[in-house]
Amino acid sequence: MSQKPSIPKGTRDFNPLEATRRNYIFDTVRRIFTLYGYAPIETPAMENLSTLLGKYGEEGDKLLFKIINSGDFLSDVNVADLPELGPNAAALKICEKGLRYDLTVPFARFVVQHRNDLVFPFKRYQLQPVWRADRPQKGRYREFYQCDVDVIGSDSLLNELELLQIVDDVFKSFGIRVGIKINNRKVLSGIAEMMGRPDMLIEITVAMDKMDKIGFEAIEAELLERGLDPEAITKLKPILLFQGTTEEKIILLEQCFTQSGTTEQQVNTLAAHTTEQQTNTFATHTTEQQVSAGMVGVTELKTLFRLITESGISQSVELDLSLARGLSYYTGAIFEVKALDFEMGSICGGGRYDNLTGVFGLPGVSGVGISFGADRIFDVLLGLNKFPTSANEAPKVLFMNLGETESLFALSCLTLLRSAGIISELYPDQVKMKKQFEYADKRGIPFAAIIGEEELKHQFISLKNLKTGDQHQLSPNELKKYLEQR
Amino acid sequence: MSQKPSIPKGTRDFNPLEATRRNYIFDTVRRIFTLYGYAPIETPAMENLSTLLGKYGEEGDKLLFKIINSGDFLSDVNVADLPELGPNAAALKICEKGLRYDLTVPFARFVVQHRNDLVFPFKRYQLQPVWRADRPQKGRYREFYQCDVDVIGSDSLLNELELLQIVDDVFKSFGIRVGIKINNRKVLSGIAEMMGRPDMLIEITVAMDKMDKIGFEAIEAELLERGLDPEAITKLKPILLFQGTTEEKIILLEQCFTQSGTTEQQVNTLAAHTTEQQTNTFATHTTEQQVSAGMVGVTELKTLFRLITESGISQSVELDLSLARGLSYYTGAIFEVKALDFEMGSICGGGRYDNLTGVFGLPGVSGVGISFGADRIFDVLLGLNKFPTSANEAPKVLFMNLGETESLFALSCLTLLRSAGIISELYPDQVKMKKQFEYADKRGIPFAAIIGEEELKHQFISLKNLKTGDQHQLSPNELKKYLEQR
Repeated sequence: MSQKPSIPKGTRDFNPLEATRRNYIFDTVRRIFTLYGYAPIETPAMENLSTLLGKYGEEGDKLLFKIINSGDFLSDVNVADLPELGPNAAALKICEKGLRYDLTVPFARFVVQHRNDLVFPFKRYQLQPVWRADRPQKGRYREFYQCDVDVIGSDSLLNELELLQIVDDVFKSFGIRVGIKINNRKVLSGIAEMMGRPDMLIEITVAMDKMDKIGFEAIEAELLERGLDPEAITKLKPILLFQGTTEEKIILLEQCFTQSGTTEQQVNTLAAHTTEQQTNTFATHTTEQQVSAGMVGVTELKTLFRLITESGISQSVELDLSLARGLSYYTGAIFEVKALDFEMGSICGGGRYDNLTGVFGLPGVSGVGISFGADRIFDVLLGLNKFPTSANEAPKVLFMNLGETESLFALSCLTLLRSAGIISELYPDQVKMKKQFEYADKRGIPFAAIIGEEELKHQFISLKNLKTGDQHQLSPNELKKYLEQR
Repeated sequence: MSQKPSIPKGTRDFNPLEATRRNYIFDTVRRIFTLYGYAPIETPAMENLSTLLGKYGEEGDKLLFKIINSGDFLSDVNVADLPELGPNAAALKICEKGLRYDLTVPFARFVVQHRNDLVFPFKRYQLQPVWRADRPQKGRYREFYQCDVDVIGSDSLLNELELLQIVDDVFKSFGIRVGIKINNRKVLSGIAEMMGRPDMLIEITVAMDKMDKIGFEAIEAELLERGLDPEAITKLKPILLFQGTTEEKIILLEQCFTQSGTTEQQVNTLAAHTTEQQTNTFATHTTEQQVSAGMVGVTELKTLFRLITESGISQSVELDLSLARGLSYYTGAIFEVKALDFEMGSICGGGRYDNLTGVFGLPGVSGVGISFGADRIFDVLLGLNKFPTSANEAPKVLFMNLGETESLFALSCLTLLRSAGIISELYPDQVKMKKQFEYADKRGIPFAAIIGEEELKHQFISLKNLKTGDQHQLSPNELKKYLEQR
């Protein structure tokens, strides 16, 4: 019967210290999400495959964990045909359910399914694990948590600001200095338009994204190879090589886009027009015919950066024109957050999407969201030694077990301490003191409460500081007060 | 592309109110588990099927959700053979992983796998979902949470007491009156022994468990049918029909077991002997040759009830000889908790097991644990209207959006309020007041903060109580103080 136990590759057990620290991360983001008026939802670990398939590209479909149908899963299947179908199609013959791959698609499904019961703008957060059959490697797991916060049903840039304030508060609370990078999908579209190749948007942004790593010459070569003409690339060059502040970058973009056909006059007219109609100057704009997408994107960026300045966000925020994450469904702002003092990929990111729920039959609902990567934040906190000692919820005091009557006195003290919220316990077995002290040491318990014959007789406790060796004699109430202060 | 979205049967979405209330349940049990020195662990949702199979009986094996192997799952399989194997064996050819069915088996696996890194006695709690391919019905789901708390590596009855104190604290904190029923597996063995049929232990206890529902005559008929002789059943009758206090029941058991061969003298000798040897009178005892299991069980019950009395547990606790839950692996104490004021099955239960980790190659580790049923506790809290209003974390105040400059002033007020921990938000869109008030109403927000032209000019806020209609004019700091007190 004996087996050597193990867990599936790419999955992890979390021991008490790790799990306590993870709870500290979850509690922190939850507290801050709540403070800003976001409410939790939960969705099932299993979704119908019809909900998940086709949402993450062909590669994503392969990486879905699929659950074999219960009961006689082969009953309606022509088994002989299975191998010919290939593994993906074959799996769909015998699997109807799959494990959640991210929180975004289940959220979109949730919004559409429950739209009549939700209050819009709908502000929700969701902290749940997701599963991907990716090849496991350092920092990449097959089960990991996402912490998503989204507002859906409002196109105001105040939502973008609010999410950035949340980012600011979360990382201030963790004591992690971060750099927040912002871009706008409409600006990227404007650049592709200006280059005369709106059809090459993806290729252009993918290349731009590599600027830091490979430099302009390599990007130029790549784009030429992909069929862009040299003249178009010449127009991109000043943007890619430009070094300057966010304000200077915005001026550069305005110049580029104005030269490419739209006058600033036209944009201002649009803004004023929109204001009059919607009386809402913070609203994001869908592209209209008379102005370029790029110019609308610039206007959004200007407004957002003005809001950021006004609201006093303390972390560093900059416009990064090479930022393009998850371009496929973002339509406006794009965010990415990295730790400044620790080498690690993006630890938080997101953006605005105008049609997340369309695929489930509810078009035209604009939303914006960000996702915190709990596992990477864990590694940053660990690497920077920023986990607070309070994120180790070890007992403050261990009562030594010196006998039956002594234990009964200890139990009454424990009730008193716990009523004051002091984490405390009695060693359950009456074994040698040495073993009990070792237990306290291994668990990181700072005080030992000793009740022997003398203590029992006079109803006091000898409290030993296990670090210094100092010992005090205290009544139960004095003990409570003493430990409350520590 | 449009699909009508749904979720797999037996699974659930949780909306903001439900999710917030569930968090209240999890936070409460977590706080109390922590207070008693228990630390969290987490295990993966997926376990190797080799870990799970054979642990829950034949029926349990069928109810495991199995995950189809990634990649070409048919490559090493003779497809033509699959139908003949039957669905269970066929599934094992193409699935290596399954979803967690409970928290007990993963915990046992965890303890064995990490035994060298754990501190014993190991006190852990675990709040995670489990999945069972059961036929869904009212109150039975395919995905549900378990909240388990166990101590492993100590045979002291102080652990049983501690778990009962946790039960007491948890339900006091919820404001739910419960009845705690206690039994002991060794007593049940003793009864079967006394009847001369230790081999029929399971059948006898299954029948006893039905006493409340079907009465003695039906049980008698059932046991006769199962092959027990009338004389044996005569010995069971006084125990089953006995009405009395826990103390009286214990005396009855002592008489029964003494008559059946063991003298009280022998038991006292054992207790004294054990004390001398282990200097630990609260220890549970494994059955030794010279005394019956039943008499050892009675001694354990007497000690446990003495500890319960001494420690002042406030909920009702009684000995229930018909209690037999999960008999297959319990070896000592057995617990079950039911709400007194609401019709519902058991909402918490557990017991002592002496060989949980044996199947994974680590024999002889005694433990005791209980499991709280979060879903049933949810239903009881809802039914008794006991969810605190604080379990609805709606914002305290909504700032109305009356324009751009007004919103900037609102943002500065929000920063002040949030720094004081006051949940608050600004309506993101500048739409009609009516719509904004409706939003506040639907979300249960009690106050609206209005900043119009006049307020902006003199830097104050008009705070409207949305229930009474009362309106106050307050400075930002006054607003903070006002809301802090509410």
